[in-house]
Amino acid sequence: MIHFAITGGGTEEPIDGVRKITNMSSGSLAWHCLEAIFLSMKAKNIKDFTIHYIKAPGAITKALTSTERSKIKFIEVIDTKDVYDTIDKLTKEEKIDIFIHAMAISDFSYSYSVSISDLADELSNKIKREGVVTKEGIHKVLISPEKQHRRNNKISSDNDIIMGFKTTPKVIPLIKRNNKNTFLVGFKLITHNHNNNLIEEAEQLRLRNSCDAVFANEASDLSEEGHTGLLLYKGEIVAKPSGKMQIAQSIIDFSVNKKLI
Amino acid sequence: MIHFAITGGGTEEPIDGVRKITNMSSGSLAWHCLEAIFLSMKAKNIKDFTIHYIKAPGAITKALTSTERSKIKFIEVIDTKDVYDTIDKLTKEEKIDIFIHAMAISDFSYSYSVSISDLADELSNKIKREGVVTKEGIHKVLISPEKQHRRNNKISSDNDIIMGFKTTPKVIPLIKRNNKNTFLVGFKLITHNHNNNLIEEAEQLRLRNSCDAVFANEASDLSEEGHTGLLLYKGEIVAKPSGKMQIAQSIIDFSVNKKLI
Repeated sequence: MIHFAITGGGTEEPIDGVRKITNMSSGSLAWHCLEAIFLSMKAKNIKDFTIHYIKAPGAITKALTSTERSKIKFIEVIDTKDVYDTIDKLTKEEKIDIFIHAMAISDFSYSYSVSISDLADELSNKIKREGVVTKEGIHKVLISPEKQHRRNNKISSDNDIIMGFKTTPKVIPLIKRNNKNTFLVGFKLITHNHNNNLIEEAEQLRLRNSCDAVFANEASDLSEEGHTGLLLYKGEIVAKPSGKMQIAQSIIDFSVNKKLI
Repeated sequence: MIHFAITGGGTEEPIDGVRKITNMSSGSLAWHCLEAIFLSMKAKNIKDFTIHYIKAPGAITKALTSTERSKIKFIEVIDTKDVYDTIDKLTKEEKIDIFIHAMAISDFSYSYSVSISDLADELSNKIKREGVVTKEGIHKVLISPEKQHRRNNKISSDNDIIMGFKTTPKVIPLIKRNNKNTFLVGFKLITHNHNNNLIEEAEQLRLRNSCDAVFANEASDLSEEGHTGLLLYKGEIVAKPSGKMQIAQSIIDFSVNKKLI
C-alpha cells in the first residue's frame, strides 16, 4: 500500500468568537495534486494506494467518482494546532511515502486585544511608578497587558486597538522527524521578489525542514492559468511548470519517480 | 416601484496580502430575508419591486428562478470601505423603502504590524532619550510605530507580533441620514448575555442609528433551526421568532406592514 498525504487550503485562527484571521489560499493547487495522483497511479497501473487529504476550511473540493472517493481519507482541520496534532498523529500511525504540504498555515495565533488608549495608560503608569523602564519590562507588558479585553467577549468598537499574536509551532519539521523516509514536498510563496532570491529562500525552507523538493513561487504569479513557479530538488531547478494542473502534475510525477520507482 | 435593500455576510479586512481578518457570518439570515420578501410580495400580489442585495465575500446564495433573479440587483463588497461607499451611493441614488442591514461589518481595519521585540526597543529607547514619556507620547508610538513591518510585505514568522487596528467609520448611520423615510432594520448580536441586557443594547443601537426595528440575538442562539431572538420596535418586543426562516418572515412581514400598508 502506497500512502500519500496532501494538505491544502488556509488555516483560520479565532479571535473573539465573531472574528477570525484567515490565511488566504483557495486550496486549488492541493486539489490538482490529488487529481494528478489519480492520473499518475492510473498511468502506472497502481491500484493499492491511499491519499490522506488534510483540508483547511474553505479549501475547494470537486466532484469525485466513488472509486476515487474510496481512495481518499479526508481530515478536516481549522487552526494551526489542529494541523499540528493531525499531522503528528498521521505521520506516527501511517508510513507516508509522499507528503505534499501545500497548506497555508498561520504563523501566528491570537493572544489578546487591548485598546491603544488603555495600553498607553498602563505603560505610562508603569514609567511613573518605576522611573526608568527597561526593554524587558516593556516587552513583558506587550506580551500580556493587564488591561487586555476579557477573552471571548466581543471587542468594543469604540477605540483603536492593538492585538497581540504569538508565533505558532512550525508544522513542517514534524513530517521528516516522525518518518525520515517520507518524500516531502514543501511550498515557498513569497509576496514580492524584491531581492530576486526565490531560489535561495526555497533552499532555506528545504534545509530547515528536510524537504526533498520545494515548489517556489511568487504571489503575483498565482492565477489558475498563469500560475508559474520553480520545482526545486536539492537546490537545483528540475521543472518550470506553468498553470496549476501542470504544476501539480510536475510535482507528483517527480515525487513518484524519485520515491516509488 | 418598491425598493428593498439587504446587506448580508461578513466583511473581510486585508492584512498583508496573504492574511485577512474576517467577520464570521454565513449570510443565511440575510438570504432568508430575501426569500421572505418574495413570499410577502406574492401574498400581497405586488409585482413592481426591486431588491438591492449587498453581499459580502462568502455569504451564501441559493438557486433562484429567472423571475426572482430579474428582481434582484446583486452588489458584491469586500471590506468596510466598500460597504460604506456602496450604501452611501445606493441610498443617495434610490429611494429605499425597507433596508435590512444584516451584514457583520468589521469595526476595525488593519493599520500596521510590528514585532513585539522591535516595539519594546522603540519604546525603551524613547524613554532613555526623553526621560519621562507621557501617555500621549506612548499613544503616538502605538498608533504608528517607526519599526512597523513594510506594507504589503509578508510578515516574518520568527517573532511574536502586535498588529494595530483603526476603528472604521460606522456604516449604519448613513442609511437614515441619506433618507429619513427608509424603514431601517438593524441587528444586534451579543456574544455573551452576562448582564442580561440584550434589549437595552438593542435599544442603544436603535437610538444611535435611528433604526426603526432591531432584531436582537445572542451568539449562542445562532443555529439554523434553533436560532432565536427578539424583534424589537421602538424598544418593545413585537415578536419572538425561532428558526432562521421564521425570523426572516417576522422581520419582513413586520416591516412591510409598517412601511407599505
